[in-house]
Amino acid sequence: MPVYYEDVEVGTVETNGDYDVTREEVLSFAERYDPQWFHTEPDRAAEESPYGGVIASGWHTAAMTMRLLVEGTLADAATVGAKGVDELRWPVPVRPGDSLHIENEVLEKVPERPERGLIRARTRTFNQDDERVFSMIGNVMYLRRSDE
Amino acid sequence: MPVYYEDVEVGTVETNGDYDVTREEVLSFAERYDPQWFHTEPDRAAEESPYGGVIASGWHTAAMTMRLLVEGTLADAATVGAKGVDELRWPVPVRPGDSLHIENEVLEKVPERPERGLIRARTRTFNQDDERVFSMIGNVMYLRRSDE
Repeated sequence: MPVYYEDVEVGTVETNGDYDVTREEVLSFAERYDPQWFHTEPDRAAEESPYGGVIASGWHTAAMTMRLLVEGTLADAATVGAKGVDELRWPVPVRPGDSLHIENEVLEKVPERPERGLIRARTRTFNQDDERVFSMIGNVMYLRRSDE
Repeated sequence: MPVYYEDVEVGTVETNGDYDVTREEVLSFAERYDPQWFHTEPDRAAEESPYGGVIASGWHTAAMTMRLLVEGTLADAATVGAKGVDELRWPVPVRPGDSLHIENEVLEKVPERPERGLIRARTRTFNQDDERVFSMIGNVMYLRRSDE
């Protein structure tokens, strides 16, 4: 059964994981979309970067978080995408070898249109040491039940 | 010459492009990171989606924007990454066949620490019809000149 706007409850918290971050994926994502040396050059990053080694592109971290969301909370959701995101933060870098999991909390429901509503939810991503590596507040469009 | 915090001027506007969006890339990004049917199933999307066909994952749009930023404004910048992003929006979908360009405007400088400062900049991404498909305000950490 699809989860419609009416089915979502404020305060619901769901979790999903894990996503294993490989060195190969960190480098290949960064080479394609974010080719800055602290993402793509392991030797230089080990010597010169304040992080002591390559770290994942922040957009890669966002994308891995999305994968966990789609497999989790969004798997049965009747959504047609998101309007945007607020307060996106990368407090701790993601490194090759990390293992990520997420926590998603419904903050607010906004009855936007007759055929759909907006669900505001905070998504947090943590590494294997439970350090928060990513967080955002997403504004996701959910369809409403047409039979109501 | 690297561009340090001191070299950045509020009000500077820079552009870069184009990024050609292929159907293959739209599908492969979505299959890996955002496997929702309106991103990954062209036939179903053509029939059932409010968008009339597959659209790129919003995170793919963000990643392509980042590529244009790294090739443009950030190419010579002495940065060590970003702390986060505010007001990220996807007002118009990106579709296979689109061609994207960006505009980046420096909004504010925040002298955060002795060794680095924060540059707040608005990045907007447009398609070939100059429709805005993406925007965000990034908070990028720039190093300061150590000889000053």
